[in-house]
Amino acid sequence: MAKVLVLNGPNLNLLGTREPDVYGSVTLDQINGSLTDLAKELGVTLDFFQSNQEGQLIDRIHQAMNEVDGILFNPGAFTHYSIALRDALSAVKIPCVEVHLSNIHSREEFRKVSVLAPVCVGQISGFGVLSYMLGLRAVAENIKK
Amino acid sequence: MAKVLVLNGPNLNLLGTREPDVYGSVTLDQINGSLTDLAKELGVTLDFFQSNQEGQLIDRIHQAMNEVDGILFNPGAFTHYSIALRDALSAVKIPCVEVHLSNIHSREEFRKVSVLAPVCVGQISGFGVLSYMLGLRAVAENIKK
Amino acid sequence: MAKVLVLNGPNLNLLGTREPDVYGSVTLDQINGSLTDLAKELGVTLDFFQSNQEGQLIDRIHQAMNEVDGILFNPGAFTHYSIALRDALSAVKIPCVEVHLSNIHSREEFRKVSVLAPVCVGQISGFGVLSYMLGLRAVAENIKK
Amino acid sequence: MAKVLVLNGPNLNLLGTREPDVYGSVTLDQINGSLTDLAKELGVTLDFFQSNQEGQLIDRIHQAMNEVDGILFNPGAFTHYSIALRDALSAVKIPCVEVHLSNIHSREEFRKVSVLAPVCVGQISGFGVLSYMLGLRAVAENIKK
Amino acid sequence: MAKVLVLNGPNLNLLGTREPDVYGSVTLDQINGSLTDLAKELGVTLDFFQSNQEGQLIDRIHQAMNEVDGILFNPGAFTHYSIALRDALSAVKIPCVEVHLSNIHSREEFRKVSVLAPVCVGQISGFGVLSYMLGLRAVAENIKK
Amino acid sequence: MAKVLVLNGPNLNLLGTREPDVYGSVTLDQINGSLTDLAKELGVTLDFFQSNQEGQLIDRIHQAMNEVDGILFNPGAFTHYSIALRDALSAVKIPCVEVHLSNIHSREEFRKVSVLAPVCVGQISGFGVLSYMLGLRAVAENIKK
Amino acid sequence: MAKVLVLNGPNLNLLGTREPDVYGSVTLDQINGSLTDLAKELGVTLDFFQSNQEGQLIDRIHQAMNEVDGILFNPGAFTHYSIALRDALSAVKIPCVEVHLSNIHSREEFRKVSVLAPVCVGQISGFGVLSYMLGLRAVAENIKK
Amino acid sequence: MAKVLVLNGPNLNLLGTREPDVYGSVTLDQINGSLTDLAKELGVTLDFFQSNQEGQLIDRIHQAMNEVDGILFNPGAFTHYSIALRDALSAVKIPCVEVHLSNIHSREEFRKVSVLAPVCVGQISGFGVLSYMLGLRAVAENIKK
Amino acid sequence: MAKVLVLNGPNLNLLGTREPDVYGSVTLDQINGSLTDLAKELGVTLDFFQSNQEGQLIDRIHQAMNEVDGILFNPGAFTHYSIALRDALSAVKIPCVEVHLSNIHSREEFRKVSVLAPVCVGQISGFGVLSYMLGLRAVAENIKK
Amino acid sequence: MAKVLVLNGPNLNLLGTREPDVYGSVTLDQINGSLTDLAKELGVTLDFFQSNQEGQLIDRIHQAMNEVDGILFNPGAFTHYSIALRDALSAVKIPCVEVHLSNIHSREEFRKVSVLAPVCVGQISGFGVLSYMLGLRAVAENIKK
Amino acid sequence: MAKVLVLNGPNLNLLGTREPDVYGSVTLDQINGSLTDLAKELGVTLDFFQSNQEGQLIDRIHQAMNEVDGILFNPGAFTHYSIALRDALSAVKIPCVEVHLSNIHSREEFRKVSVLAPVCVGQISGFGVLSYMLGLRAVAENIKK
Amino acid sequence: MAKVLVLNGPNLNLLGTREPDVYGSVTLDQINGSLTDLAKELGVTLDFFQSNQEGQLIDRIHQAMNEVDGILFNPGAFTHYSIALRDALSAVKIPCVEVHLSNIHSREEFRKVSVLAPVCVGQISGFGVLSYMLGLRAVAENIKK
Repeated sequence: MAKVLVLNGPNLNLLGTREPDVYGSVTLDQINGSLTDLAKELGVTLDFFQSNQEGQLIDRIHQAMNEVDGILFNPGAFTHYSIALRDALSAVKIPCVEVHLSNIHSREEFRKVSVLAPVCVGQISGFGVLSYMLGLRAVAENIKK
Repeated sequence: MAKVLVLNGPNLNLLGTREPDVYGSVTLDQINGSLTDLAKELGVTLDFFQSNQEGQLIDRIHQAMNEVDGILFNPGAFTHYSIALRDALSAVKIPCVEVHLSNIHSREEFRKVSVLAPVCVGQISGFGVLSYMLGLRAVAENIKK
Repeated sequence: MAKVLVLNGPNLNLLGTREPDVYGSVTLDQINGSLTDLAKELGVTLDFFQSNQEGQLIDRIHQAMNEVDGILFNPGAFTHYSIALRDALSAVKIPCVEVHLSNIHSREEFRKVSVLAPVCVGQISGFGVLSYMLGLRAVAENIKK
Repeated sequence: MAKVLVLNGPNLNLLGTREPDVYGSVTLDQINGSLTDLAKELGVTLDFFQSNQEGQLIDRIHQAMNEVDGILFNPGAFTHYSIALRDALSAVKIPCVEVHLSNIHSREEFRKVSVLAPVCVGQISGFGVLSYMLGLRAVAENIKK
Repeated sequence: MAKVLVLNGPNLNLLGTREPDVYGSVTLDQINGSLTDLAKELGVTLDFFQSNQEGQLIDRIHQAMNEVDGILFNPGAFTHYSIALRDALSAVKIPCVEVHLSNIHSREEFRKVSVLAPVCVGQISGFGVLSYMLGLRAVAENIKK
Repeated sequence: MAKVLVLNGPNLNLLGTREPDVYGSVTLDQINGSLTDLAKELGVTLDFFQSNQEGQLIDRIHQAMNEVDGILFNPGAFTHYSIALRDALSAVKIPCVEVHLSNIHSREEFRKVSVLAPVCVGQISGFGVLSYMLGLRAVAENIKK
Repeated sequence: MAKVLVLNGPNLNLLGTREPDVYGSVTLDQINGSLTDLAKELGVTLDFFQSNQEGQLIDRIHQAMNEVDGILFNPGAFTHYSIALRDALSAVKIPCVEVHLSNIHSREEFRKVSVLAPVCVGQISGFGVLSYMLGLRAVAENIKK
Repeated sequence: MAKVLVLNGPNLNLLGTREPDVYGSVTLDQINGSLTDLAKELGVTLDFFQSNQEGQLIDRIHQAMNEVDGILFNPGAFTHYSIALRDALSAVKIPCVEVHLSNIHSREEFRKVSVLAPVCVGQISGFGVLSYMLGLRAVAENIKK
Repeated sequence: MAKVLVLNGPNLNLLGTREPDVYGSVTLDQINGSLTDLAKELGVTLDFFQSNQEGQLIDRIHQAMNEVDGILFNPGAFTHYSIALRDALSAVKIPCVEVHLSNIHSREEFRKVSVLAPVCVGQISGFGVLSYMLGLRAVAENIKK
Repeated sequence: MAKVLVLNGPNLNLLGTREPDVYGSVTLDQINGSLTDLAKELGVTLDFFQSNQEGQLIDRIHQAMNEVDGILFNPGAFTHYSIALRDALSAVKIPCVEVHLSNIHSREEFRKVSVLAPVCVGQISGFGVLSYMLGLRAVAENIKK
Repeated sequence: MAKVLVLNGPNLNLLGTREPDVYGSVTLDQINGSLTDLAKELGVTLDFFQSNQEGQLIDRIHQAMNEVDGILFNPGAFTHYSIALRDALSAVKIPCVEVHLSNIHSREEFRKVSVLAPVCVGQISGFGVLSYMLGLRAVAENIKK
Repeated sequence: MAKVLVLNGPNLNLLGTREPDVYGSVTLDQINGSLTDLAKELGVTLDFFQSNQEGQLIDRIHQAMNEVDGILFNPGAFTHYSIALRDALSAVKIPCVEVHLSNIHSREEFRKVSVLAPVCVGQISGFGVLSYMLGLRAVAENIKK
């Protein structure tokens, strides 16, 4: 069965447990739970990894090369400047879908540019937790091809 | 039952019938068919409108105010300069989801900026026909709220 | 008696009937009524035209060449990118006054620049419905010269 | 009776007395005379102040806080760089209308941007002496609100 | 016999009938007459279409796919911002030659950039009516290849 | 005993007496009082000067050359464009500390750049009245060296 | 008793032990000692953390949420590009004061912009070790409010 | 009989003899031959000059003042930076037509700007060898006027 | 006998009396003495004015209209931002020569642009006190014409 | 014997083992082997360190202060944004040579700028594995001086 | 006796003989004559060189190292882009004065920047032939020092 | 035996003979001598050419097509603007290595960009005379492939 790596970048460990007005009241664990349910429906299995460290995310992407068929990635703030993560995604050539909780196109000017999106299959932004679900569907479809 | 307006901008009438290597081999009618199937599953009904004219799209958005609960919009090239469409979306206050077949973030520099996205719920870009399906799910979820 | 063409661009048909907090509660018809009253006082007659289509506005400006002595123009969002409207105004050489309901200089950065103003007599911005009345006075004075 | 401060910035003392091809043949005194006539019609009284010194204009704006209901301001060249005047207008919170004799949008690039307009009610530009008359009407209307 | 579509954008319907100092004294009909004479010499037939509406030009380009071997296009002001026209030209893959009456490289800064030229065979600019004649020769040569 | 010149630029005379929500409820006199208390503790004496005129501030800085050991300066809006003040500070070579009530780095884009800071010892911004107190400590420490 | 986290970013571990002409001759330990003395005077306790790793600083800020009332932060080079640290500070909502040893406004152009300052209470820059002392006073005052 | 100078800039001596995939298989001599044929038809005589040296091209343009009625110029890479050539063309006031083999508007960003075009009659770009033929027609027409 | 106004802007009163390494050891009085000597030789008389206040310089320029044939102006830092001084010079139409002690083209980037030079006869920069002498010669020559 | 630290940044651990068309077929171990051979010839010893973590690279550079005479550094993607690494190199003052496998000047625009190169001895880019060998020669020569 | 090299760049050989409205009616020979007269008065001898070739000007500057005490240079269009000439002037370290006939600060935007001025003693611009005379005085003064 | 052309651009003929603090004390002849020694070791022969003229360098590159296997090029100041040299290198398709004595990445902003590097194999910058030696090794390796 195809395996998808669910990758979360900096500060996303805080989801739901605090600042519900900013981050919503759903925790990352609950999102992962919902993703697991959807994964069953879509016939894929999931691996989860979150880190606030750019280098650990790079390591995890490298390691994914032998075990993963697709990546679902919310890179958080690294979206806007981590060319190293971009190079990691380019190197492993695993199809990756970039997702964002908020609509990055309607926030500060510096959040409108993603240095990762050009090496991803596509980008989904603005739908809250639903962004993850739509993203997983996109990854699963992409694996089928 | 909630109603969703499926809006397509300039040149999207050409989908599938020609240039299959550029636009894919699926026609806009076929996409609309698939969207209709998904709409049933999601419990919404659909209206379809395509135009190559900015003004007709604005007129259609205005008219939507009394009849539509959500908009699924592939604005084509208008994405990048039609402030008039942006103002129309702002005025009618119907939740809108922007979708793109190609990954606009990995094409020419001028295609990376959307003047519409800041007034939409979110943006989905890069998944081919699947972008429409994910977008419809996002619209439907948004209507439920 | 001198004739003035009152021209309104995209989305201005929505004035007053909806979103009163955004667009105010005065309709375009009511504005036109007030303009008609003022026109009598100023000794000019008025023609009214609104369109959401750039091309129809250009056509109407062309047609004005034989029948109109001045133009009062709220170009809406076309203010910021319609070089075709600019060329139309340059071509017909009818004195035109550009008006805006809101203060375009205190909104988003992209709304501060008008591609039309350089070929107009002047610009009036920020006084709500009064902008139209002041604009009509400016057109009328200009015709007298 | 409501009182309006008519404020003129640098070089406007030269109006009419010299360079009639540049500044027109109407003097600032004559403009003030016409404004006085219009003020009677509008039911407001006027105070006049002109200075070539940024600081004196700031002082006069501060002093206006207890005595003035609206400001009619032609800031001349300070339009384009005096953030100190902008802060003064912001601080006193008296409604201010910015006027210009020439159409600043059709001159040198650096004259298109006003650092004051974002804290004014609105801007009127390009109608010669009429700009002042329209501006006074705008101030008077604003006071009534 | 090969067929060439002669396409003219906004405001070009005014050619010659008015503002002879700006637009020259030759009408679009006269240009079309001269083009017809040259077409005979070159062994091609011509279709003519002018519109002030971006969308109608897009429609006409789409329609050209089954009937036309080359396009001679003066896009007027759309040259500088109509990405939708660019996409239309890309989609139909009919060789197109962009022509301009005036030398767009010696006018305002914003007229120096063409968003259409990158998807055309080439651009001819600055020779008045002769630009059309040279352009037709270029289209005809291109068809022969 | 070392002497410090406390310099305040445009609009700072309004502090506390008006617009308490904008400027706080503390007056410049009260700030000066608190600074006097702190000065005793630090073993320095203070001179105070406020002006809305760039030239008077320059004059005062020149005059300080023979009498002052350090400058505590809130330049207000002159922070962002007065190269003449910058040159004055460079010329007199008295150590100067730039202070701001508000956090200028979290306001409008044009307030983030200080043309004075490069010729000051340092900059303190964002702590309200406390900015002055911290600034006086910094000046006093600097004099000791 | 209120607790303050003293946070130091990359390369600040080298302070004083080497390159005294660049970094001064005071070590980070000595600064921490001086801060401890001042903390007693101000009635706060201190926690210290230094790391060259962006992710570890983010982790430490997250952990601070339950134990710390204010943050004193010298982010070193991360000042200029770590949007992830900015998001961490925004998320935990603990008042933070940004300090710099050198005057970042008088160094290379790229050092003048702080991506962190907009989410801090304020910024103190240019006073050497004294910047820390002034910063601790600012944090302590802020906690009292 | 009118005389036309055919001027070719740097690297154009290589045409056809090498890199046929880049430069085409037609040599500059062959182009000159075709131009000679066309010149007879158009009733003009031709002079030819090619140089890789900016200064020699300037000298040749100066010398042309007494002997030449029009210039046909492919400036090669000098198109983009030789202000000295621009000044030479301005000085001699001989009508000049700028031609390019490739479509410079669809290549690297720096090739889109011509510093020469603003002082030429017009520019023809993108038609391979045909660009020269069209250019000669344009020069010949211009001489007739 | 022709009269020349020698105008000096902000901080130039400090010349020579202090900071000899920066400003040289020659005082403004000594420069004026040398200028007086040269004026005799050139057959012109001189008036001197220095101010640190932009507005006083504007007033002096206005006053010069009836009494002065040429202006020799070192505008100091106002060179770079005083559009009000530019407008004053434009209004009085007295030929003005801009001089600078230092070579403004080899200093900070913001010192390379003069907003005044475009309305002056010319600019002389970089020769120390000699810049004034050369400037006076240029003014005198200009008056003769 | 002099010691050189061979430092490799993010994603360079993948060299050769995968994506041979992108990264070549030589592994980092093989490069290190070749470097070791060359080191013997040059009379230096080598230390090797690779990390995907910016902070670990900074730590390693700090640690190098007491043990290393020169650094050979391929910073990978950190080249373009890690100001923290730049500061680390500045602090330790060990001569460093920056090397790149690919020609960074012929890739994406954002890869042309190195924030590290200004604090290195020099940069070598574009020669594949040979870049390392040339770089080691440069380091060795630099140590000799 | 001190020797000055009078250097003229591209197109200046045309001075006076043609286009008197553009270049004035004075020839370069006449300017050189006037300079010779002034040189006698100033006690210097002159060498003259003009070329339209950047490389010949560089060669002449190199050759000047052993024979010349100062350079008077009108670089024409090379002013704006010849970094090679800049490097030549830097290398030979002969004091150079840059002169221009026209006021380069009031012409096209690209003529406002000189790449040579930063390595010259100073720049004189806008006084026609007088610019050369003032420039020679400046060179002569500079040699005396 | 393979042949390498050693090409030097403007001002490099001055190396060593003058300004030893700027250019070092090694002459170009000495560099060529060292290169000759290294060439023997590497088994290649060398041709040398230096010119201050862009066009002569282009001519020499053209001529190299039949006789040379690789180019070692220090383009001096032409690095930053000679698109004509870039086109010459592109045309002849001989592998070229760009070398610089100084570290161009740590000098003025305009020296950081090379218009030639994108068409070279790679760039070596900052190692003084050693840059040439490393560059020759790179050329020789490239020829072997």
